Amino acid sequence: MEGHLLDSMIITNILDSIMDRQGDFEILQFDVGKNRTDSSYAKIRVTGNTQEHLYSILSDVYRLGATSPESQKVNTQRAPEDMVLPDNFYSTTNHPTQVYLKGEWIEVEDPMMDKQIIIEDDKSRAYTKPIRLVKKGDLIVVGEEGIRITPPERPREGGGLFEFMASEVSPEKPSAFIVKRVAEDLKQTKERNGKVVMVAGPAIVHTGASPYLAKMIKMGFIDALLSGNALAVHDVEFSLFGTSLGVDIQTGSTRRESRNHIAAVNQVMKEGSLKGLVDSGKLRKGIFYECIMNKVPYALASSIRDDGPIPDVIQNSLEAQKQYMNLVKDAEFAIMMASTLHSIAVGNMLPSNVKSIIVDINPAVVIKLSDRGTSQAIGIVSDVGTFLPLLVEELEKE
Amino acid sequence: MEGHLLDSMIITNILDSIMDRQGDFEILQFDVGKNRTDSSYAKIRVTGNTQEHLYSILSDVYRLGATSPESQKVNTQRAPEDMVLPDNFYSTTNHPTQVYLKGEWIEVEDPMMDKQIIIEDDKSRAYTKPIRLVKKGDLIVVGEEGIRITPPERPREGGGLFEFMASEVSPEKPSAFIVKRVAEDLKQTKERNGKVVMVAGPAIVHTGASPYLAKMIKMGFIDALLSGNALAVHDVEFSLFGTSLGVDIQTGSTRRESRNHIAAVNQVMKEGSLKGLVDSGKLRKGIFYECIMNKVPYALASSIRDDGPIPDVIQNSLEAQKQYMNLVKDAEFAIMMASTLHSIAVGNMLPSNVKSIIVDINPAVVIKLSDRGTSQAIGIVSDVGTFLPLLVEELEKE
Amino acid sequence: MEGHLLDSMIITNILDSIMDRQGDFEILQFDVGKNRTDSSYAKIRVTGNTQEHLYSILSDVYRLGATSPESQKVNTQRAPEDMVLPDNFYSTTNHPTQVYLKGEWIEVEDPMMDKQIIIEDDKSRAYTKPIRLVKKGDLIVVGEEGIRITPPERPREGGGLFEFMASEVSPEKPSAFIVKRVAEDLKQTKERNGKVVMVAGPAIVHTGASPYLAKMIKMGFIDALLSGNALAVHDVEFSLFGTSLGVDIQTGSTRRESRNHIAAVNQVMKEGSLKGLVDSGKLRKGIFYECIMNKVPYALASSIRDDGPIPDVIQNSLEAQKQYMNLVKDAEFAIMMASTLHSIAVGNMLPSNVKSIIVDINPAVVIKLSDRGTSQAIGIVSDVGTFLPLLVEELEKE
Amino acid sequence: MEGHLLDSMIITNILDSIMDRQGDFEILQFDVGKNRTDSSYAKIRVTGNTQEHLYSILSDVYRLGATSPESQKVNTQRAPEDMVLPDNFYSTTNHPTQVYLKGEWIEVEDPMMDKQIIIEDDKSRAYTKPIRLVKKGDLIVVGEEGIRITPPERPREGGGLFEFMASEVSPEKPSAFIVKRVAEDLKQTKERNGKVVMVAGPAIVHTGASPYLAKMIKMGFIDALLSGNALAVHDVEFSLFGTSLGVDIQTGSTRRESRNHIAAVNQVMKEGSLKGLVDSGKLRKGIFYECIMNKVPYALASSIRDDGPIPDVIQNSLEAQKQYMNLVKDAEFAIMMASTLHSIAVGNMLPSNVKSIIVDINPAVVIKLSDRGTSQAIGIVSDVGTFLPLLVEELEKE
Repeated sequence: MEGHLLDSMIITNILDSIMDRQGDFEILQFDVGKNRTDSSYAKIRVTGNTQEHLYSILSDVYRLGATSPESQKVNTQRAPEDMVLPDNFYSTTNHPTQVYLKGEWIEVEDPMMDKQIIIEDDKSRAYTKPIRLVKKGDLIVVGEEGIRITPPERPREGGGLFEFMASEVSPEKPSAFIVKRVAEDLKQTKERNGKVVMVAGPAIVHTGASPYLAKMIKMGFIDALLSGNALAVHDVEFSLFGTSLGVDIQTGSTRRESRNHIAAVNQVMKEGSLKGLVDSGKLRKGIFYECIMNKVPYALASSIRDDGPIPDVIQNSLEAQKQYMNLVKDAEFAIMMASTLHSIAVGNMLPSNVKSIIVDINPAVVIKLSDRGTSQAIGIVSDVGTFLPLLVEELEKE
Repeated sequence: MEGHLLDSMIITNILDSIMDRQGDFEILQFDVGKNRTDSSYAKIRVTGNTQEHLYSILSDVYRLGATSPESQKVNTQRAPEDMVLPDNFYSTTNHPTQVYLKGEWIEVEDPMMDKQIIIEDDKSRAYTKPIRLVKKGDLIVVGEEGIRITPPERPREGGGLFEFMASEVSPEKPSAFIVKRVAEDLKQTKERNGKVVMVAGPAIVHTGASPYLAKMIKMGFIDALLSGNALAVHDVEFSLFGTSLGVDIQTGSTRRESRNHIAAVNQVMKEGSLKGLVDSGKLRKGIFYECIMNKVPYALASSIRDDGPIPDVIQNSLEAQKQYMNLVKDAEFAIMMASTLHSIAVGNMLPSNVKSIIVDINPAVVIKLSDRGTSQAIGIVSDVGTFLPLLVEELEKE
Repeated sequence: MEGHLLDSMIITNILDSIMDRQGDFEILQFDVGKNRTDSSYAKIRVTGNTQEHLYSILSDVYRLGATSPESQKVNTQRAPEDMVLPDNFYSTTNHPTQVYLKGEWIEVEDPMMDKQIIIEDDKSRAYTKPIRLVKKGDLIVVGEEGIRITPPERPREGGGLFEFMASEVSPEKPSAFIVKRVAEDLKQTKERNGKVVMVAGPAIVHTGASPYLAKMIKMGFIDALLSGNALAVHDVEFSLFGTSLGVDIQTGSTRRESRNHIAAVNQVMKEGSLKGLVDSGKLRKGIFYECIMNKVPYALASSIRDDGPIPDVIQNSLEAQKQYMNLVKDAEFAIMMASTLHSIAVGNMLPSNVKSIIVDINPAVVIKLSDRGTSQAIGIVSDVGTFLPLLVEELEKE
Repeated sequence: MEGHLLDSMIITNILDSIMDRQGDFEILQFDVGKNRTDSSYAKIRVTGNTQEHLYSILSDVYRLGATSPESQKVNTQRAPEDMVLPDNFYSTTNHPTQVYLKGEWIEVEDPMMDKQIIIEDDKSRAYTKPIRLVKKGDLIVVGEEGIRITPPERPREGGGLFEFMASEVSPEKPSAFIVKRVAEDLKQTKERNGKVVMVAGPAIVHTGASPYLAKMIKMGFIDALLSGNALAVHDVEFSLFGTSLGVDIQTGSTRRESRNHIAAVNQVMKEGSLKGLVDSGKLRKGIFYECIMNKVPYALASSIRDDGPIPDVIQNSLEAQKQYMNLVKDAEFAIMMASTLHSIAVGNMLPSNVKSIIVDINPAVVIKLSDRGTSQAIGIVSDVGTFLPLLVEELEKE
């Protein structure tokens, strides 16, 4: 092991995992970095009761950032059929990963959790693939050897949100302060031309916050929008009729115009697409109006619950995943708001070094995302209906 | 208006809606049923400021169970294009609905919310269709006339759960008692050969309750299962490896076997389907094993978040909706557990006279279902991991 | 029964309750108000199986707004001991209540739920008392006769929040719009010199919103503040040290200065009270600084969980109740924020015609308040840390 | 530093805290325990920019388990007044703590968080006191020197709940399995005569689970019960009338007998106490009946929200704290169920080496307890109404 072993918890996690599996260890060497900027080096002998026991321990240990000193050769087997893996397949983490190919460590492209690593036949490249896209004969990495993982270290400098909150979930955090930090992080990311992706749920419209998201898009803070049918339908419904799920957001009439969202679908159907509705002059404001006018790409994934869906929505879930992955690529910052389904989907696609925040009024959503492995995401338990207006206020300040 | 106007809140709701819209009314006649079994009759004159104002009031009033004394002719227009509706289309409630065709009230088939009513060209039938399936030239009901709605009255007899709880949501209800009532309702439904459909989320597996759902299926209490990829993958993962999302449910080891759920996907891929996995002798227990052995049909809808998905999962969301609707047809009882997405989808497909319960640990899910119009559903805020074992205990009692 | 029987649901509730108790009824007379401003009159014969059965039905019926045509004499018995009631005691609702004394209906002073009605020996006055304060010999109302209750009718005019939301709970309401309505209601209340009471929990400080509450006090929008030890301690902690529960709210350092809240207690102890701390010049800002400078009275109730408590906190719970009741008296508007315990306590003290809102990030808190009988309260599921800043912005607008 | 520095995260936390405060460090010596049972030794030089900066770093470092090599003399100052501390007072953690007195390390009695350490004038003893009980002239520990803290190490052996769950909060844990583990832990604790304390909220009665808690008491699993007025009142209400908050738990009638809980209070008032009610033969079952019959002590703390309260309830919060502390003393296992207020109060009184679980349907409660410093508590997000019946089933098994 090498790196900031002590302060980034790498060695703690590794020893923990050995003990959790009832394994034994002996620390053969431990050269501690004297100062906070030095890195450390440790060499540990791990013992298991049986070959299989040892194997299960090592599998953890490697995933936590250790590498084997003995053999560095990565092992592969060919996929026996389309969409079928060799039994011993390696399943990825979301951390930056390298494989040892032709005498050197090669970066695995598109690190994403729960995927497979494919090696090009000429061993020039390694990249991830989901099982569904695996083709018969693909060279699949198996076992745990020859793979090196770099868990992200905790950020220390910069004074952004990520230095402040270390993956904690609490409704009792200083929201006004957090808004300022998120604005700061966003501005910094855009200043260096970093890519910001936004995952947004329909509650943004229901809570009356959609004009603020529209503004963020207009101001250039969002580089891609990932959502589903409901956000688009309710955004159109609100832009055309002033209601969301039939509730009048501006006059506050208590009676529901429950047919409005189907009427919104119908308007899109008539013009063939959201773009068509903008071109026809009917859609003149809102989230998707701003996306289209400012050429911010979006991907809308369908689900079983959709009314419609409108033609812009991708009905096939695999196809939707591909488009999501495309838009998420190279993101530096991901904001997920009020959407459990799409947030978990995007969380699964993000490498662990992408700064991610999730804003939801429900602490369970935030916990769930972390339980599903997106442990780098900072959970903010707040109300998007009040959070977004304050965020836009901050973004508008010089 | 006719019926149990007073005690079933029909007249209250109607007068309320007129006043909410700033309309005026005069009660012309009110013959009150003297006793609790008599029905009442009321005749009301509604006045609006403008034609449009009046129209918006009447639209509500009709939806709440009133009918126009003047004209009973239902109006229709032809769909101008595939998937496009006439502007003045009628959007359905989830209540039993009749249309006035050729001098008599005809029952609309498959009442479901937010759909359109199609009239057969020979006026022999009326049925609902979602906008996506509307074909150019379909005869679509427009306006609000000639339509009669029957909101369900509150059940008074029987002593089941539905008499006990009137659509309230509270975590502080007597859970042990509720379990008994649900068991009672289930037994009664099955005794008269009523159809029970189950919507189930993967938390049933994560919380260790899947053997209990499997048992309910084996005992014959479930006639159709509606879910997604995750339930199937984690059920197979648990049956094959004893883990769910990598957490060992039986020995409780803290280390996650995070590759197990992909390994479960891979096993299904190898055999081509869940049925194949059962036939191969590899899958010998669990929810889907019992479904297959007991010929209980299931429909699995894909979503953007799926790992895999396995071949049994329907990737196209419209196709999934069709299969769901097929299985939900003629259901008398719907149980929705630990699944927001699929519960809302099924809620949208259920007529308001289907007894429905939703069990979730999150009160927000229960509120959401009701906000989306499935107001007949009784929300039970409980933990499926402890609720299901107790329910099966009750079902096993004579 | 008299009043807006139909639209305010009075008659529906009454018939409902008779049927729920398996009673029978016959409607003898029903004169319906023709127009929306007319009131109606109904006369109903209720039948039970036994005297006791009938009695239990009537008990409900009276509470829902009906009065007995036969005997109007209110019955009383003397309390047999201090703090002991006659078995047949009448337990109050939170609705405006009258008793029939010396030939006329007299208003019961301080209507509050779950209390007893005491009649002055000379029958000149009637007022509520909690059981703990009942003295031997007090004339206590028993039975259900001679008592008239006026459940509040739903407000229709004005366009404030209370016309918009009818006691629904949902996290998916348009927050930004709600903020505007609350600001409107507050301004209107203050314009007519109505009394506004605020119940506030410590999360207001933890979420960084305390400067905004301080500002509301300074602006004159709050006439009394009800809270506990924690709000005061964390307000002082934040004013003196910039932290809340040790978390630095301004620089966001992640390390907790966990001793700060005890140090805040110690500073108050030194000066003897919050007032002393202000007088000493040490406390120069914050919620309680503004209360003291602007002579806004407060009552702080102790609980088992208190650190300290500081001397301003009332350690005896009965004494605290008395002071709360004093401050709550004649309130027209009650705002409850981020405090379950104190909100329920105040909810119990408020007559049902006091406009009440409860803002909490947890829908369960809002449901609980309503379950406890404060059904007039409108629940707003939002984050006080973002809600309060936006509310102050609105209040500052002309 | 000495101990299992690596695997118990002690050194990680210490280096983390130095860096969080922008301090510098140099590792002078690090002797690593080779095997999992060996302890390690580390010597670190910490540098700050100013004396104050260094002091703030050291304050953290000492709290996390480091001790100063230079001076071990503990410093003290006398309290200047009753209830007033010297400015530089030491505020305790909830970890086992020692002070260096007369040449040796002395255990501080009753370790509890946010208290002060008092040294007997003859230096024979050290113990904690809350600020309210500090007397003028008490010898109070100040500064950070001469104090040694032992954060608990993570349990590895035994297979109980605490090895399985490492302070995680998630609604998606295997509940049925957790029930088994808790039963196991309880049985083991009672076998070695360990003390079990129970904190219980009134939702136990509302959810119909009170007969199961009563049974646990009868079976001898509970050694002390900590709660408030509501649990007692609703327990008596349920035992006497079969209702809780007026809801009939057994027949499920929908109408509320809202006066029942005041009638329950009245019955206790008549007999003077819960014991009196049992002695009178009126109270024959329930939680408090079993406490009284089985001589299980209880303490009931009052709050501002109480109806009554009954005479058994301690109205003064400081007095209530004393009685709670008395009952909590020497507890080995603490179960907190469905009570935020009392759980946080007890959490504050428990040393960090007391095994603690908190069962609540609301994840926010569980998070809050941990945020308040009771980080050893394991949070179980479940429904007490179904959890308790299953737990009793497990406890009844041989």
